[in-house]
Amino acid sequence: MKLDRNGLEVLDSDECWQLLSENHLGRLAVVAGNRPEIFPLNYVVDDSLLDATRTEGSGPDSGEDSRSLVFRTAPGTKLAAAAVGFPVAFEVDSADPMFHTGWSVVVHGTAQLVETTDELLQVEALPLRPWGPSDKRHYLRLCPTELDGRRIPRGTGH
Amino acid sequence: MKLDRNGLEVLDSDECWQLLSENHLGRLAVVAGNRPEIFPLNYVVDDSLLDATRTEGSGPDSGEDSRSLVFRTAPGTKLAAAAVGFPVAFEVDSADPMFHTGWSVVVHGTAQLVETTDELLQVEALPLRPWGPSDKRHYLRLCPTELDGRRIPRGTGH
Repeated sequence: MKLDRNGLEVLDSDECWQLLSENHLGRLAVVAGNRPEIFPLNYVVDDSLLDATRTEGSGPDSGEDSRSLVFRTAPGTKLAAAAVGFPVAFEVDSADPMFHTGWSVVVHGTAQLVETTDELLQVEALPLRPWGPSDKRHYLRLCPTELDGRRIPRGTGH
Repeated sequence: MKLDRNGLEVLDSDECWQLLSENHLGRLAVVAGNRPEIFPLNYVVDDSLLDATRTEGSGPDSGEDSRSLVFRTAPGTKLAAAAVGFPVAFEVDSADPMFHTGWSVVVHGTAQLVETTDELLQVEALPLRPWGPSDKRHYLRLCPTELDGRRIPRGTGH
């Protein structure tokens, strides 16, 4: 088990993707007007581009993983204005207070609006619920450039 | 029930504080090197300054609420470097997939290091667990300048 300087277990990218795939609620952090904003969002992992774009020699740890996260958002929102084309951070976690354990995965990358018809048809088929009742007609895709996962080793939490 | 443009119920500051008080895990978003970073953190609501500093005429909605959030962090961390003295956003949420409901509270403000002996004695008495096993000897205090709470009205989630 690899530990970081804070005594947390470092998760490899396969473990990060596994945890991301098993969950559906995360938080998107963006920079807007020199301050951070943070939004809860449902998301889904999209691996449908995997076979088509993966090139020989690129594995899960090569940094060329083509799996991505897809979100829905309403047109014209503060979220979309601050996220599309800019660096974002997206976080998913779970905590178990009973056993003082928990994990967290943080994804960095740049969010892009899904615009082409082919891609729209593809993401509309994903099992993605928006967070809340409004008409979230736009889809954002986040292709991770960094993936950081940490777990509190059981029995070490205070 | 007041709804925002996205059809979400707008929570008043008393409801926000109630939800903050009932929970202990949130996520701190900061700006570091022109990109957002996001950290899971345990926190506690500190209302011990309430009576001492509240002035006549300042109520929960006056923007002068002296309740604050307190976190622990290890000295010299990326988190502390990007948070202390800078604008931050802190988010706490809960989702109930069964009923397609959920809520989220986002706090904005500037994080400050707790430094005076009196204040340190006070925060050390708070029931605050760090997230993870490392030696988190520093305390940060976030006095909210903005408090935004939203709830998905039951039965309206998709």
